[in-house]
Amino acid sequence: MDLLIQTIKEEGMVLSDTVLKVDSFLNHQINPQLMFEIGKEFANRFKEDGITKIVTIESSGIAPSVMAGLQLGIPVIFARKKKSLTLVNDLLTAKVYSFTKQESNDISVSKKYLSENDRVLIIDDFLANGQAAIGLAEIVKQANAEIAGIGIVIEKGFQDGGKLLREQGYRVESLATIHSLNEGKVIFTSDKTEEAVR
Amino acid sequence: MDLLIQTIKEEGMVLSDTVLKVDSFLNHQINPQLMFEIGKEFANRFKEDGITKIVTIESSGIAPSVMAGLQLGIPVIFARKKKSLTLVNDLLTAKVYSFTKQESNDISVSKKYLSENDRVLIIDDFLANGQAAIGLAEIVKQANAEIAGIGIVIEKGFQDGGKLLREQGYRVESLATIHSLNEGKVIFTSDKTEEAVR
Repeated sequence: MDLLIQTIKEEGMVLSDTVLKVDSFLNHQINPQLMFEIGKEFANRFKEDGITKIVTIESSGIAPSVMAGLQLGIPVIFARKKKSLTLVNDLLTAKVYSFTKQESNDISVSKKYLSENDRVLIIDDFLANGQAAIGLAEIVKQANAEIAGIGIVIEKGFQDGGKLLREQGYRVESLATIHSLNEGKVIFTSDKTEEAVR
Repeated sequence: MDLLIQTIKEEGMVLSDTVLKVDSFLNHQINPQLMFEIGKEFANRFKEDGITKIVTIESSGIAPSVMAGLQLGIPVIFARKKKSLTLVNDLLTAKVYSFTKQESNDISVSKKYLSENDRVLIIDDFLANGQAAIGLAEIVKQANAEIAGIGIVIEKGFQDGGKLLREQGYRVESLATIHSLNEGKVIFTSDKTEEAVR
């Protein structure tokens, strides 16, 4: 998705060979117009798939998901990382291990909002090791709902998540895939493809 | 806002005299169409006020804020409740006491995204005791930015937050104001007004 790749090029900050900071438009400050375009792109890619619900995880997955839900005309459910006081019973839960934080956290969704009749699009902001997406997929499966696909805003192509999910048979649609962050520079998979074509 | 009041009447669950659960459309599952209308309503009420940024707090403030930001054409910043690994330096922080959880938490916003040239609209999902809004206002003031107003999706009119904020001189725009939750029933301030007129 060109607009997204352009924005990452202009605003993304490479903190290390594995960490890209995009908190000017996605993870802290949010650019609503860009989110709208991202939502449109997800809606477009999954419009023929009979999606009934989007499942994401707080907090950075919410903005792109809500924009996709707006354009697909379906509800969004965000998994919580922490148990809410008014959300205690009948939870579907999964453990998500964070490599960056080196800790395991429960994420949860109320049983009430997912059923075996649902076809779910999972959306998240980043795909790195795939742990969050796998946790969300586990929750959807607990509800006996179907997983139609996984929509990712930024995939770190040099980490294992994408491979892992695709090997498990999931359709993964990433709007921008990063080939590497070496030497402080963002190289996209599409840049590499262009190079190969030249 | 009629559509919101209607949705609360149909889907809101009164858990006690003080707790209203709206996790079918706002706090866990999100109704994107309704959020779009809520965003439009906020945009409408503040369109003449030269707002440059919306400041909200994760997670439930994000959806209505992003929709308002979309329609005002401005960025949204969400304050974090927990420190992020890639968001560590130059933070504006405030303490927010939660009466329900009986604990105090730091919320933070990066200095980078707020300046003295900003006119800020603070948005949150609920207004009860006003602690979150006061914390957000404190952060905006630390940046020497101006607070143009506070937009609230659901105000609990029987708790002190609204009074407190208005006494401090803030313009508070609540899209639905609840008069009481007694006996398991949601009574809106607008219902009481209608009664008085009859």
